[in-house]
Amino acid sequence: MKFRVEAEETIFQGRIIRLVARDLVLPNGRRTTYHIVEHPGAVAIVPVHANGDVVLLKQFRPTIGSEIYEIPAGTIEKGEAPLATAKREIIEETGLRATRWSKIAEFYTAPGFCTELMHVYVAKGLRPASAEGDADEILRPVRMSLEAALRLIRAKKIRDAKTIAGLMIYHGRR
Amino acid sequence: MKFRVEAEETIFQGRIIRLVARDLVLPNGRRTTYHIVEHPGAVAIVPVHANGDVVLLKQFRPTIGSEIYEIPAGTIEKGEAPLATAKREIIEETGLRATRWSKIAEFYTAPGFCTELMHVYVAKGLRPASAEGDADEILRPVRMSLEAALRLIRAKKIRDAKTIAGLMIYHGRR
Repeated sequence: MKFRVEAEETIFQGRIIRLVARDLVLPNGRRTTYHIVEHPGAVAIVPVHANGDVVLLKQFRPTIGSEIYEIPAGTIEKGEAPLATAKREIIEETGLRATRWSKIAEFYTAPGFCTELMHVYVAKGLRPASAEGDADEILRPVRMSLEAALRLIRAKKIRDAKTIAGLMIYHGRR
Repeated sequence: MKFRVEAEETIFQGRIIRLVARDLVLPNGRRTTYHIVEHPGAVAIVPVHANGDVVLLKQFRPTIGSEIYEIPAGTIEKGEAPLATAKREIIEETGLRATRWSKIAEFYTAPGFCTELMHVYVAKGLRPASAEGDADEILRPVRMSLEAALRLIRAKKIRDAKTIAGLMIYHGRR
């Protein structure tokens, strides 16, 4: 495929996302302009306690103006390795530190228009840590059995793609 | 919670997405400005043949500059009901028409910064239909057993959140 970018213009540069207009030549030879949300990538974490319980967050999302269930997650900072982001975010969001990490998935959240790549980890060996949350984040950790979390998915009460994918992939691997 | 939007400014209005800056009062009383990608919502479809095979797409995504596996999907057009979008997209993308539809999930793809809500359907009673694809879309349908699709997820070869969530929720409901 001979896909190429012929020109690019930044429309907006924010703290996390950048909106760009790209003039492209598609692999079928067609020329088109595409608006793309560039995102630095993110991590999501399935924290698992020794008895098998998982930790979700009930998080208020200003984007949608309501509270939803999510697994802990966060944006990769400049120059940060994804696992370092995960180790930072689990403490900030759950007040827990983890000693055993394994990567279980990597996926795009919205490849139609956004470059965000999500790295998903399972975190075990959980211990309390002193957390300093982000003042703009409104969330509380909720501990439950994996079976309870899967029931919330079936009942359509978990409405976040990374959370559904992360929990179900973890469930399928146990 | 007394969340409210105090002001809003459109930074960019595209064909599908709109980038807005919103001055918000969060439920904890803090004031902040949030950049939000407004999206009209989308549908994704798990097409299931009579023998249990599913239909995925191998789709070239200009956003990420490569080809990935996805279930058929598309953006909801203005005034369109999600199920109507799904009935249109399955024909455009797979050349198949479906007679039996059921909704299995509804989730946000990236609630940290984007309003996109994805409606996921299972489509059965598949029959060939005459398709007129979108000239800017480069894709081909790939039929495989559900077990083969789940193996691709485990092997990390399916790297799209809605596809992983859609296939695994369908698998869990059978």
